Amino acid sequence: MSSTDSPAHSTHPVNTTTTAGTPLKADATSAHPPASSRDPTLTSNAAQGGLAAAHASPAAELASLKMKLKAALRQFPDFPAPGILFEDILPIFADVQLHEDLLRALELHVLSASTGKPDVVVGLDARGFLFGPSLALRLGAGFVPVRKQGKLPGPCETAEYVKEYGNDFFQMQADGVKKGQKVLVVDDIIATGGSASAAGTLVEKLGGIVVGYVFILELDFLKGRSKLNAPVHTLLASQEQKLGSSES
Amino acid sequence: MSSTDSPAHSTHPVNTTTTAGTPLKADATSAHPPASSRDPTLTSNAAQGGLAAAHASPAAELASLKMKLKAALRQFPDFPAPGILFEDILPIFADVQLHEDLLRALELHVLSASTGKPDVVVGLDARGFLFGPSLALRLGAGFVPVRKQGKLPGPCETAEYVKEYGNDFFQMQADGVKKGQKVLVVDDIIATGGSASAAGTLVEKLGGIVVGYVFILELDFLKGRSKLNAPVHTLLASQEQKLGSSES
Repeated sequence: MSSTDSPAHSTHPVNTTTTAGTPLKADATSAHPPASSRDPTLTSNAAQGGLAAAHASPAAELASLKMKLKAALRQFPDFPAPGILFEDILPIFADVQLHEDLLRALELHVLSASTGKPDVVVGLDARGFLFGPSLALRLGAGFVPVRKQGKLPGPCETAEYVKEYGNDFFQMQADGVKKGQKVLVVDDIIATGGSASAAGTLVEKLGGIVVGYVFILELDFLKGRSKLNAPVHTLLASQEQKLGSSES
Repeated sequence: MSSTDSPAHSTHPVNTTTTAGTPLKADATSAHPPASSRDPTLTSNAAQGGLAAAHASPAAELASLKMKLKAALRQFPDFPAPGILFEDILPIFADVQLHEDLLRALELHVLSASTGKPDVVVGLDARGFLFGPSLALRLGAGFVPVRKQGKLPGPCETAEYVKEYGNDFFQMQADGVKKGQKVLVVDDIIATGGSASAAGTLVEKLGGIVVGYVFILELDFLKGRSKLNAPVHTLLASQEQKLGSSES
């Protein structure tokens, strides 16, 4: 959802260094960067990961995939506002092999958790739609979206969540989840946890059981997972500390 | 994208009957409908389609899948405004088999067109994200999103499009498509064609070649395809005429 994207990256300023292991590129926000600013080591990383994965245990395969995926992230300082470090997951989707790797990693990640296969994957508008449906297919689960109020037709359940300035409302269709179904809630990033928590509330209002939350990234220092009442699984933890924040 | 959803369904009033073959349910917008308002014939339709597909030609398989998918659509009269008939594609994503069927149908649909496999699938925010990434994976293509201005980090290309009230702007990341790449633009529905046309403009600004547009649904009477300068492939054409419109 448009208006929930920004809080994920903008509620707490961080400086322009990162613990994610990928050095920031000085030209990342310039008007005319090189045609590709992708990490030149990515191809060799990918090849290495592929070889390693062929005969690896699920745990070793997952570790290898995580390294490849983490190397593909791009960091954009000062977006969407000065002092904010934006983690860009889109290079993963632009590359077929990385995209496959992401889904395989998420699948391994979910299956290695004690929660087991969900009946339904619930994805948050809009970046949770980028991989929620394909993950649902891999897991043999249905996919149901959470959207901002007014976007979904028919009878809906509604939950409020707190944004930086004022509140907003999420909705799910009333028959999206059935009583007793096991539900996995997914989004690209957990920041303050407000939107994910609202999604969990909606699932429970419909009678579903939230068996877990899955994110690609987590802004650990915001402690969003403390708002969630089911296990939280983050594929690629990042920004573990609030670095050089003016608030610290 | 939130603000482009509504024009697809609201720019031209239609009455509450449909040519889509599925009768409208009188209780579709009531506050407390039955837990499930799905078509009770769907299971038998699905089983039939599965059997037929097993030994069918690609054309026969596609025809069978289209019937199943069309039967799964729900129509909601008077959403998002009185006099508007909203076509709901979400039941397809909630059911694993229908979701698989959708992707298989889209794959057959694209491969049967003369355009061949694209290098990149470009999907429109937000409902184009629901199946664009999974279709890209099936086709062995990259996936790149089009988003509303201000959502994408780094250097972007921008295109304006006309909405019902005023204009809006779409963006793509500047390195999302490379010069000479073959691009397929996808969205759930084509109405006036304004947003799809803006996406095509963005692809061309980046040096890409738009080889086609794919939609699940089309509001034929709005003639949106006349705005697009590449072949348009609609999986499940619907609302072929402007029925009983007050404007007619």
